[in-house]
Amino acid sequence: MTPRPVLEFWFDFGSNYSYLAAMRIDRLAARAGVQVAWKPFLLGPVFRALGWPSSPSVVQREKGRYVWRDMEREAARLGLPFRRPSQFPRAALLAHRVAVAADGQPWLPEFCQALFLRNFAADQDIEDMEAVSEVLSAVGQHSGVWIERAQQEDVKLRLRRQTEEAQARGIFGAPTFFVADEMFWGNDRLEQALAWATGEAGRPER
Amino acid sequence: MTPRPVLEFWFDFGSNYSYLAAMRIDRLAARAGVQVAWKPFLLGPVFRALGWPSSPSVVQREKGRYVWRDMEREAARLGLPFRRPSQFPRAALLAHRVAVAADGQPWLPEFCQALFLRNFAADQDIEDMEAVSEVLSAVGQHSGVWIERAQQEDVKLRLRRQTEEAQARGIFGAPTFFVADEMFWGNDRLEQALAWATGEAGRPER
Repeated sequence: MTPRPVLEFWFDFGSNYSYLAAMRIDRLAARAGVQVAWKPFLLGPVFRALGWPSSPSVVQREKGRYVWRDMEREAARLGLPFRRPSQFPRAALLAHRVAVAADGQPWLPEFCQALFLRNFAADQDIEDMEAVSEVLSAVGQHSGVWIERAQQEDVKLRLRRQTEEAQARGIFGAPTFFVADEMFWGNDRLEQALAWATGEAGRPER
Repeated sequence: MTPRPVLEFWFDFGSNYSYLAAMRIDRLAARAGVQVAWKPFLLGPVFRALGWPSSPSVVQREKGRYVWRDMEREAARLGLPFRRPSQFPRAALLAHRVAVAADGQPWLPEFCQALFLRNFAADQDIEDMEAVSEVLSAVGQHSGVWIERAQQEDVKLRLRRQTEEAQARGIFGAPTFFVADEMFWGNDRLEQALAWATGEAGRPER
C-alpha cells in the first residue's frame, strides 16, 4: 500500500483565516486521500521576529478594515458561521499546548474546530483555563487530564520548538500548508496545496 | 436593456498579481456578462502613504521569497508564461499615463496585457519611452500620438487623481476590484468579485 501523502497544516487559534481552513481541511483532505498533520504554533513570536508588533490586520489599518469584510464574505461563501471577534488577535497559549499534547489523537481536529468556533463564531475568550476546559469537555475529553498534560515541561518545549521550526521554514502568516518543502500560504491556497500533495497540480520547474 | 454590471480593475504595471488578473479578466468578465473598467494607478505613493518604503514583497524578505515561488505555481496553474523579473518592482510612469489617456479605447486591454507580459514574461524594461512605444506599435497604435497625449497636463493630473482616489477608497495593494463600493483584494478574488457583480455571490448583511 502506498502511504497517503501528508499535508501539514500550520495554524494559530487566533488567526482568522486559519479558522476558515480548519473547518474545511479534514473533509477536503479525506476526499483527496491526503493525511493532515495539525501543526499548532504561536504566530505572535513569528510576527515579532519579522518586526511586526501584532497581526498585519492590526498593524495596517486599511488592510484590517478590508480583512473583516472579506471574512464575512468568505465565511458566507463557505457556509461557515462568523462573528467578528471583539478582541483580536486572541491569545490562546494553553489551547496551543493542549493541541501539541494531543498530537495524533483522533479528537484533535474536532478540538481545534471547537476552539476556532468559540473565537470566530461565538466571540468568546479562548485563553483562560475554563474556556479550554469547556472545549475539551465538549469534545468528550477529560479536561483535567489534558490540561495537566499540556502544562508539563516537555509539552511547553515542543510548542516552543514548533514555533521556532515555523520561523526557520519561512512561515510569515497563518494558515500555512506544507507538502514536504513546498509551502502554501493562506486559506485561499488549501485546494492547490491538496492538489500538490496528490500530484494533480502542474509542477513548475524549480 | 439592463446595463451590464461594472467591475473596476485597479492595477499597477509593476504589480505581479495584477499581471495574473490582467491576463484573465476580459475572458472571465465577458463570460459573466460584466463590463470591466481598467483603472491604472501608482502603487508606489499608496505604499509610501501606508508607511512602506516599497512593495511588501520587497520590504518583507520572507514574504518576498514565498511570493515568487507562488507566482511560478499560479502562472503554471493558469497557463500563463512567467519569468521572475530581474528588477522589481519596475516603475512605469509613462505607461500608466498612456493607459489613463487611452481610457475607454477598445485596444486598452490589449495594450495593458502586452505591457504586463513584457515585465513578467519577457523580463524587459517597461519604463523608458522606447519600451512604451514598442508596445503601442505592437498593438497597432501610433506610438507618437499616444505618447504625446500621455504627457499632457490633463492626463498627468488624471493619473494623480486616480492614485488619490485609490488611497481614499482604502486600496492597500493591487490588483483591487470594486463592484460599486464592495472591495476585493488580490487576483485570488477575481472570481468572487465577478460573482458579486452578477449577484451570484451570497451577500452577507453589513
